Amino acid sequence: MIPKSHPRYESLMTRELIVEGVKKGITSIQGLIAQGRGEAFDYLIGEKSTESALHAEKAAAANLLLARKPVISVNGNVAALVPEEVIRLSVLACSPLEVNLFHRTEERVNKIIVHLQSYGARNIFTKSDALIPGLEHERAKVDSNGIFIADVLLVPLEDGDRCKALLEMGKTVIAIDLNPLSRTAQYATVTIVDNIIRAVPNISKFVEKLKYLDREELQDIVRGYNNKRTLSRAVDEIKKNLESFSDMP
Amino acid sequence: MIPKSHPRYESLMTRELIVEGVKKGITSIQGLIAQGRGEAFDYLIGEKSTESALHAEKAAAANLLLARKPVISVNGNVAALVPEEVIRLSVLACSPLEVNLFHRTEERVNKIIVHLQSYGARNIFTKSDALIPGLEHERAKVDSNGIFIADVLLVPLEDGDRCKALLEMGKTVIAIDLNPLSRTAQYATVTIVDNIIRAVPNISKFVEKLKYLDREELQDIVRGYNNKRTLSRAVDEIKKNLESFSDMP
Repeated sequence: MIPKSHPRYESLMTRELIVEGVKKGITSIQGLIAQGRGEAFDYLIGEKSTESALHAEKAAAANLLLARKPVISVNGNVAALVPEEVIRLSVLACSPLEVNLFHRTEERVNKIIVHLQSYGARNIFTKSDALIPGLEHERAKVDSNGIFIADVLLVPLEDGDRCKALLEMGKTVIAIDLNPLSRTAQYATVTIVDNIIRAVPNISKFVEKLKYLDREELQDIVRGYNNKRTLSRAVDEIKKNLESFSDMP
Repeated sequence: MIPKSHPRYESLMTRELIVEGVKKGITSIQGLIAQGRGEAFDYLIGEKSTESALHAEKAAAANLLLARKPVISVNGNVAALVPEEVIRLSVLACSPLEVNLFHRTEERVNKIIVHLQSYGARNIFTKSDALIPGLEHERAKVDSNGIFIADVLLVPLEDGDRCKALLEMGKTVIAIDLNPLSRTAQYATVTIVDNIIRAVPNISKFVEKLKYLDREELQDIVRGYNNKRTLSRAVDEIKKNLESFSDMP
């Protein structure tokens, strides 16, 4: 057991949840490596939601509230780390969930669906009867009523190729990616450079706050958002942290 | 199969080797997360041996050549990624190997020993009859003829607490750690901020080159090395890379 007083309690607990996910068969082994990459970048942004992350999370909430057909994509890491939080956001933002895996097997998709249902998820697209154009078959599979026709997609931890293919279908893509330099981060409409354990509850908070605004006001938020500028502020935060680290005695 | 032409071939192959290591039972699941963290930092230093890394690798070689009792510590990631290279360095620098694990089980220690022997390793300390003072029992276990009495230790991917405990025993600790800000990096006598797949062969090259020098000349190299300065150059390299990334179109 890791004591709550441990200076790296949150990071270590997150790691335990991911290892747990692998044991349950919902997280892939590659998901562990992705977790490690995320840890490194989270460390570099200071393991907190930076101002630029909060700015992107607000824009994400506005986009979800304006959507006609929003969908939240769930992979093995999201299911292991934030099952309750992603279901809560799904309900608040009227955005059904759909399981979408980089290393897709039907077995793992089904395990994740059952896992989400055990946490109370009711609104999940479960078919795989449509294909995203331009992707290799297994990774192209989506639900014809879900991701395939969605106008706004929240994709935590998406890979670059698929992010690009989804954008080419004309969708608004909100990515959660701790690496502000990744291809996904560079391509997405809105990139949230934050840990999913903080990002998902933050988006929920903004949804609750913004849901009383009218469409005009929401559109102002969306129009006022500049992803390139937000990413370069995220890179600046990392540089600033590196400087303070290198001042260490 | 990943084609050799893939822009991320080396990084992806490394990942496959680690996953392979987990399947063989020589790499821990936590080792995968460590691999991911390493990938992120490797990406930030440009996935190459920087000038400051080469400088540290040269100092590491000089330290090993001057040692009366050098030992190379091997963990599950090293065994999975660079078994042949670490054995080659062990022979060139007359430094026996010793398996030392953060998540220690006798079963995994033995599997790694057999794995290294299958690659031709002959000189391995295999007892666990001494304890490093100040560490929790399982993590303190070492060979009384090996790490316990070594004067110079090469510890790829060591954890901060143990690095500190080894230094407190009066040893020279050469760490290989891609995160220049980690506690291990800050504590070690010589910190090599480089991927072990490049660092280990690089140290071997320096050993081959420096072995003709006399002790005076080797001592000059050791005395002329400043770890704090080398680390701050490594941090500068990352900042420079972040700048060029953020200039991307």
